[in-house]
Amino acid sequence: MTIDLAKVEATLLAAAEAAAAHTLPLFRTTLAVDNKYTLGFDPVTEADRGAETVIRAVIAEAFPDHAIIGEEWGNSGDSDYTWIIDPVDGTRAFISGAPVWGTLIGFAHSGVAIAGLMSQPFIGETFLAVPGRSTYRRGGLTTPNRTSGQTELAPCRVFTTTPSLFRTPEMMSKWTAIESATRLQRFGMDCYGYALLAAGHADLVIEPFLNTYDIAALVPIIREAGGAIACWDGSDPTIGGNVVAAATPELLEKALELVNAS
Amino acid sequence: MTIDLAKVEATLLAAAEAAAAHTLPLFRTTLAVDNKYTLGFDPVTEADRGAETVIRAVIAEAFPDHAIIGEEWGNSGDSDYTWIIDPVDGTRAFISGAPVWGTLIGFAHSGVAIAGLMSQPFIGETFLAVPGRSTYRRGGLTTPNRTSGQTELAPCRVFTTTPSLFRTPEMMSKWTAIESATRLQRFGMDCYGYALLAAGHADLVIEPFLNTYDIAALVPIIREAGGAIACWDGSDPTIGGNVVAAATPELLEKALELVNAS
Repeated sequence: MTIDLAKVEATLLAAAEAAAAHTLPLFRTTLAVDNKYTLGFDPVTEADRGAETVIRAVIAEAFPDHAIIGEEWGNSGDSDYTWIIDPVDGTRAFISGAPVWGTLIGFAHSGVAIAGLMSQPFIGETFLAVPGRSTYRRGGLTTPNRTSGQTELAPCRVFTTTPSLFRTPEMMSKWTAIESATRLQRFGMDCYGYALLAAGHADLVIEPFLNTYDIAALVPIIREAGGAIACWDGSDPTIGGNVVAAATPELLEKALELVNAS
Repeated sequence: MTIDLAKVEATLLAAAEAAAAHTLPLFRTTLAVDNKYTLGFDPVTEADRGAETVIRAVIAEAFPDHAIIGEEWGNSGDSDYTWIIDPVDGTRAFISGAPVWGTLIGFAHSGVAIAGLMSQPFIGETFLAVPGRSTYRRGGLTTPNRTSGQTELAPCRVFTTTPSLFRTPEMMSKWTAIESATRLQRFGMDCYGYALLAAGHADLVIEPFLNTYDIAALVPIIREAGGAIACWDGSDPTIGGNVVAAATPELLEKALELVNAS
């Protein structure tokens, strides 16, 4: 790999800063909320659209040959290097004032995310990973992310955004199995749950039906902190799907075994 | 009422600041977690205990004759004026790194909360009410809290900490009715959801089985912002119970009607 990783890191940080100028002024204000689909509720805000536009511009200036996938503006370019953007992950949190949404920017090589950033600008937190390093930044301080090291299911703190994500009875039985096997469950976290896992405060996150832009940025943040993340069939989760993230590879293996047996 | 309200406000702020010195250093660290009950999981942390001790000391110095009720150290004193403390509301959030817990301090006269404070020191936010005024404070700025003014159920953003709070089928049918009647539901907020309602970002919060220290502080923060809050039987919620908070009295009436018909 001949990519300049320092430039990748600088681009992630610059893009997040540019995005915050479009998300923060709209957070906790009255928003124009569209319905993206006629069935169900999927708010798309000005914040999403403005932020993705500036993130794309920052990336295109630094790496004009790279491909970009974004939640709002689709795919562009053709390259072995792909940037994967969710300008506001957790739009439901965003429109209800909860500061657990984030701006996600992933960087993948040959289909696997190797660098990524999650930014929560209202709190002023950034979780960032490049190969060999996962860090937490706030208020000018940078500290390494380390997962909890948990290897057993029973003491686990588990996050999922809402149990209603598990839409079918078959899906729900998998969530029920995880719920019964673990100590503490929390809902409502979106990308923030994965970031807390990387930083050692949660042990397990399980969510179905993720898109690539929901998860790509978080994959290296978790892996470079000592965690493990995969689709339920064991495949790499960069492209999305049904995902489990765990504090350790041992815990991931136990969680996948339970999910696939339930 | 001859009480010095400026002194009440100053005491709320001083007590919250003292509490933060005990909660913040323990947030996102490995904690000694006890099980308060042998059935179920109820973490009680050093943060809870240390914070309530200093809050009680600040109140006792300012108002030595007032009664105090606290989650950790019980009841003391006998007075028409009562301070009601939950040092860390949302201990599950606290021990999983989620910044949606809060320090709650209510002030009641003749059994009804008339002043109160909710502090989230990691984010640096304070929601405070005294008679005639509900305010939001962050970073040296103070702004008034105003609810959304929503009067209809259909467009509502609804919070509840987790659907599993609705323990019985009868209870669950009430939650399901609210869920079906509203636009957006979010879980995992604890006291933070009520604060967001006061500030206009959510429209409805419904939770059963609250204790007085879970809710007393939030009652005036909501009422002085234009909102309404009551137990499901319409009674004052300061002492706890099954509670609904709403952006307007009209919305509260519609929510109570639905809950009592389901």
